[in-house]
Amino acid sequence: MTRVGIVGGTGYTGSELLRLLARHPGAQVAAITSRGEAGTAVADLFPHLRGRVDLRFREPDPGLLAECDLVFFATPNGTAMRLVPELLGRGVKVIDLAADFRLKDPAEWERWYGMPHACPDLLAEAVYGLPELHREQIRGARLIANPGCYPTATTLGLLPLLEAGVVDPSWLIADAKSGVSGAGRKGEVGMLMAEVGESFKAYAVAGHRHQPEIRQNLMAAAQGPLRLTFVPHLLPMIRGIEATLYARLTDRDCDLQALFERRYAGEAFVDVLPPRSHPETRSVRGTNLCRIAVAEPLGDGVVVVQSVIDNLVKGAAGQALQNMNLMFGYAESTGLEDLALLP
Amino acid sequence: MTRVGIVGGTGYTGSELLRLLARHPGAQVAAITSRGEAGTAVADLFPHLRGRVDLRFREPDPGLLAECDLVFFATPNGTAMRLVPELLGRGVKVIDLAADFRLKDPAEWERWYGMPHACPDLLAEAVYGLPELHREQIRGARLIANPGCYPTATTLGLLPLLEAGVVDPSWLIADAKSGVSGAGRKGEVGMLMAEVGESFKAYAVAGHRHQPEIRQNLMAAAQGPLRLTFVPHLLPMIRGIEATLYARLTDRDCDLQALFERRYAGEAFVDVLPPRSHPETRSVRGTNLCRIAVAEPLGDGVVVVQSVIDNLVKGAAGQALQNMNLMFGYAESTGLEDLALLP
Amino acid sequence: MTRVGIVGGTGYTGSELLRLLARHPGAQVAAITSRGEAGTAVADLFPHLRGRVDLRFREPDPGLLAECDLVFFATPNGTAMRLVPELLGRGVKVIDLAADFRLKDPAEWERWYGMPHACPDLLAEAVYGLPELHREQIRGARLIANPGCYPTATTLGLLPLLEAGVVDPSWLIADAKSGVSGAGRKGEVGMLMAEVGESFKAYAVAGHRHQPEIRQNLMAAAQGPLRLTFVPHLLPMIRGIEATLYARLTDRDCDLQALFERRYAGEAFVDVLPPRSHPETRSVRGTNLCRIAVAEPLGDGVVVVQSVIDNLVKGAAGQALQNMNLMFGYAESTGLEDLALLP
Amino acid sequence: MTRVGIVGGTGYTGSELLRLLARHPGAQVAAITSRGEAGTAVADLFPHLRGRVDLRFREPDPGLLAECDLVFFATPNGTAMRLVPELLGRGVKVIDLAADFRLKDPAEWERWYGMPHACPDLLAEAVYGLPELHREQIRGARLIANPGCYPTATTLGLLPLLEAGVVDPSWLIADAKSGVSGAGRKGEVGMLMAEVGESFKAYAVAGHRHQPEIRQNLMAAAQGPLRLTFVPHLLPMIRGIEATLYARLTDRDCDLQALFERRYAGEAFVDVLPPRSHPETRSVRGTNLCRIAVAEPLGDGVVVVQSVIDNLVKGAAGQALQNMNLMFGYAESTGLEDLALLP
Repeated sequence: MTRVGIVGGTGYTGSELLRLLARHPGAQVAAITSRGEAGTAVADLFPHLRGRVDLRFREPDPGLLAECDLVFFATPNGTAMRLVPELLGRGVKVIDLAADFRLKDPAEWERWYGMPHACPDLLAEAVYGLPELHREQIRGARLIANPGCYPTATTLGLLPLLEAGVVDPSWLIADAKSGVSGAGRKGEVGMLMAEVGESFKAYAVAGHRHQPEIRQNLMAAAQGPLRLTFVPHLLPMIRGIEATLYARLTDRDCDLQALFERRYAGEAFVDVLPPRSHPETRSVRGTNLCRIAVAEPLGDGVVVVQSVIDNLVKGAAGQALQNMNLMFGYAESTGLEDLALLP
Repeated sequence: MTRVGIVGGTGYTGSELLRLLARHPGAQVAAITSRGEAGTAVADLFPHLRGRVDLRFREPDPGLLAECDLVFFATPNGTAMRLVPELLGRGVKVIDLAADFRLKDPAEWERWYGMPHACPDLLAEAVYGLPELHREQIRGARLIANPGCYPTATTLGLLPLLEAGVVDPSWLIADAKSGVSGAGRKGEVGMLMAEVGESFKAYAVAGHRHQPEIRQNLMAAAQGPLRLTFVPHLLPMIRGIEATLYARLTDRDCDLQALFERRYAGEAFVDVLPPRSHPETRSVRGTNLCRIAVAEPLGDGVVVVQSVIDNLVKGAAGQALQNMNLMFGYAESTGLEDLALLP
Repeated sequence: MTRVGIVGGTGYTGSELLRLLARHPGAQVAAITSRGEAGTAVADLFPHLRGRVDLRFREPDPGLLAECDLVFFATPNGTAMRLVPELLGRGVKVIDLAADFRLKDPAEWERWYGMPHACPDLLAEAVYGLPELHREQIRGARLIANPGCYPTATTLGLLPLLEAGVVDPSWLIADAKSGVSGAGRKGEVGMLMAEVGESFKAYAVAGHRHQPEIRQNLMAAAQGPLRLTFVPHLLPMIRGIEATLYARLTDRDCDLQALFERRYAGEAFVDVLPPRSHPETRSVRGTNLCRIAVAEPLGDGVVVVQSVIDNLVKGAAGQALQNMNLMFGYAESTGLEDLALLP
Repeated sequence: MTRVGIVGGTGYTGSELLRLLARHPGAQVAAITSRGEAGTAVADLFPHLRGRVDLRFREPDPGLLAECDLVFFATPNGTAMRLVPELLGRGVKVIDLAADFRLKDPAEWERWYGMPHACPDLLAEAVYGLPELHREQIRGARLIANPGCYPTATTLGLLPLLEAGVVDPSWLIADAKSGVSGAGRKGEVGMLMAEVGESFKAYAVAGHRHQPEIRQNLMAAAQGPLRLTFVPHLLPMIRGIEATLYARLTDRDCDLQALFERRYAGEAFVDVLPPRSHPETRSVRGTNLCRIAVAEPLGDGVVVVQSVIDNLVKGAAGQALQNMNLMFGYAESTGLEDLALLP
């Protein structure tokens, strides 16, 4: 039995972790913390957990967390990095669902997150928790940087092309769209249903924090520099990310379908669809799947990849659980077998 | 007073025409036809018109239509081309909201629409009804090919760049998203709310009929060949199109903001937003506006244009009315002064 | 020309007033105030007003407001009552869109709104601004209490039955449902799209502030005591209220359809639908209409009334404008002629 | 291992059965039939089942079905009654998710369903599959009439009041609201997202087929006549039913909260919420739960019950599986342990 702690459990990532852990035969949630809601029953905040999750939120006490085998951080950016060194020192493993350990370069991190990094020495050790890229390192890791939602969908979609060297890395386009749950559970006018319902827009066109994260992943794959234009958009729906990815083929003879199928053969959570498919976000809702289709429209030399995930599962809590499974020796799919809820 | 007929008025384009014409001081709807609904009161099909539109649908009788000054075709593709020659011959002007007269090359038309063109000789005469491109020809036209919804949003967004020659025409990307009303008012499983609500997907990635229409527009602007990748997506909402457009800058010193503002100075229905804006589809809902923002993310040499319209207004019925105003000497904005309905 | 001021213009009611006033030929918005947004351009907050409304928010200065002929209060409850006496004293007329002057009994007001009333002496003078009930008094009023959204839909639906005395007043049921814009433009977790989208619930079952307001209206109509159970619900959509109303018939021979048609004959903004109709909220979206259908299911002695309005128009800003038209001698429909935006 | 057949598997009820059965350790889907889609892979119609459900639709062949231990009918009304006698005769048990066996009186059935009943002799034997009412009979049944969605939510909400005799049975009101998936997976204009999104309305006010079904349930509970007004409404969302129920208390001293808690003590799938709760449909989305709250607003002598279910689970496929568990000796919750998907 793995004793698990969750720091910052009042957001959607935290509640999704609880939903998934409730079905995991090997995990036991020993503590869930929230400064603002200490004392409140979890089920009072999250009515779907009533009768199944008996915990109350507690103050984030390091002593309490040190009794866990694993602590998930579902906190705002900049929180985990202040607590992680002590926890690691006390033998606790950590999966950070925020961005604190995702970028390898502390200067880059400071540029995008607006504060100096509190423990830059840990950045090299932290393993970027995308199992399709780093499965073996994850198994042995103490500290996992759980990938961002857009980076998961985008990286998985472009990876085969860059690893195989069949596209021009100097101009990659990622046009990504996310449901509103990606913005978290905070009272902001801009995320009211009356503001975002029945409307659509791009945001952060000038530059989004997930751009350097994706670029870092893709540069490793391409083993060289690249230029990535990443534009996120806000969808009038709750769960799901779709990324439509564009690249110019340098190898016009490449069998794209075979390339993708080969790359993800054996991956339980990446499903390459047949040719001429159009993956829908609802087909992965509530699941840890990434569904991908690849095409070359009109034979025009441009490859178009469609990649869909549930931003709260494969884009956050599900991937975190997948990482936990790898770190603690469970079968990789444990607790992640759900079918999507459709319609 | 302009006597107006509408052929095929049972869809969303037809009902939107009625909504707009009801407020136009110079237009009088003399007849609206529908084979399937002949005899039905218009207000029984469209409850919002109750008490304001007294018409009944009638059989599409050429004699009836010949008494009009202008006939709008809001019919499926391939219908208008069978009736237009006779109407023109009887001195009636025509605005076709379907695709019959949009492509200049009849072979290209047949390739994309799956049937031979019934009156290819009229293709040269037909004026493509995008006033921002062809205002003067529209004034004198007998036959208007009213632009498609995606082509309107995309063309207006890329036009300034191609006319000015500041981007590489060999790789243009248009990632476009439309609300479900663009699919029309037909009983199809795939457009049920239970199928398209709370989900998002691309469609027609292999090739969509609006691609050659956009390419034709852009080639005229660029005065040369170009390569355009166009991917449409379906939004879980009713009205609105957003197109995010990507091109590689060849002139890195170009003042993009000034270029767009200059191109659309004096245009009543194109609103170039200030730098760092993110146009929302709801800001144009119910209006004939196209709102545009232009940016170069991270100074990376790639220009990103965001363009939003209401697919049923500037993308269909509103633009048709704008064309009517030009053809019949009304002020161009007549009947199109509404503010968007927000929230 | 009527000089108009708006106090508290940063909510949906304020922006809807601006939308409607922009089309009113006799009204000129002289000032719009907001403590929090003083200095901000209105169009920066409300993108649909860009290019059409040039105002900036200003501090709420009584001197400024005293130059107006009419001031609308679109403020939280408890604000207008502090400023109204001075404005009235300076000859300014007032329409309060909040609840400050809706209840005639100051003790009842204090019970439901949690604070003592600041000017109870004005409660008798204030006219409840439902034109279908108090048209003549509105024409002569200095101070209008603009009705709440639920009370408008519910009162108009039950009025004919109680005035005619054909139902048992001792058990009336109003099951009402509202879109989320009714909750206003405030950053609250509970109104995030991720919280209220794709879900439905009742709220305030134990007692809602609109219950005494409706009861006061209905008691005047019934000229006697009555018992009203009112349960509001939250709809996963933006605009619209539907109220389904239930009462036991005491006169089984009453021609309900004729009763309703007679009561509202000549009313421009109440539309009694034909028998067996089901009014949809979208059929009144953006308009000042109330659409009503009446039925006796299975001939069972229970009358069921369906009543729909747009909560921001007939339920707030549109009705306020209708009241302004009456007070200042404009035709009652001026600025309120829009057709609904559908789909 | 229980061999299961599904007749008519192309709708939402059928696909939901497949989703739930895929996680049931004792059930094996031996065949799924569809006249229209014979030969199609199930996963081609339902993308969320890809990789988990390998079946193809087959012609509905009685020989094939006779090899099953249990056949679910997820067909339109009037289909099951033509096949059931033969299946029962061959020793196959049947759960009909349509309405064929729900009403005990064949004349009443014919009145509401518009055709004579094909096997009226089986109506007496058929057990109405609401386990909270008929658990023991279900265990021994050959033929289950699986309850309708509205009847499930409404019956469970009113049952304790009528069994205890604390309300006046002569005037009961059920104001029920359903998501669009309740209308099934048929291509109808009226259920397009552009028609039902962002709008709300009542329907079938004159009389809905679920009214006699509910009345039959409640009369058994009340052991006497009663009058029920039932009005269904269409919600702009996909899954979920909420019923707000009104009755006049005859026993003003009744402890309503205790009454409900006592009635449903030990029921795994009925969750009585604490006082002053407002159950949300999303809190049961994807689950077999019915959540209920009871209140007496303003101490006014009227009891208000709120009852929520997922129409496709407790209102259809989940309840059918619960019945299967009872009939075949599985623990009642087997395959039904999922937590709701929220947000």
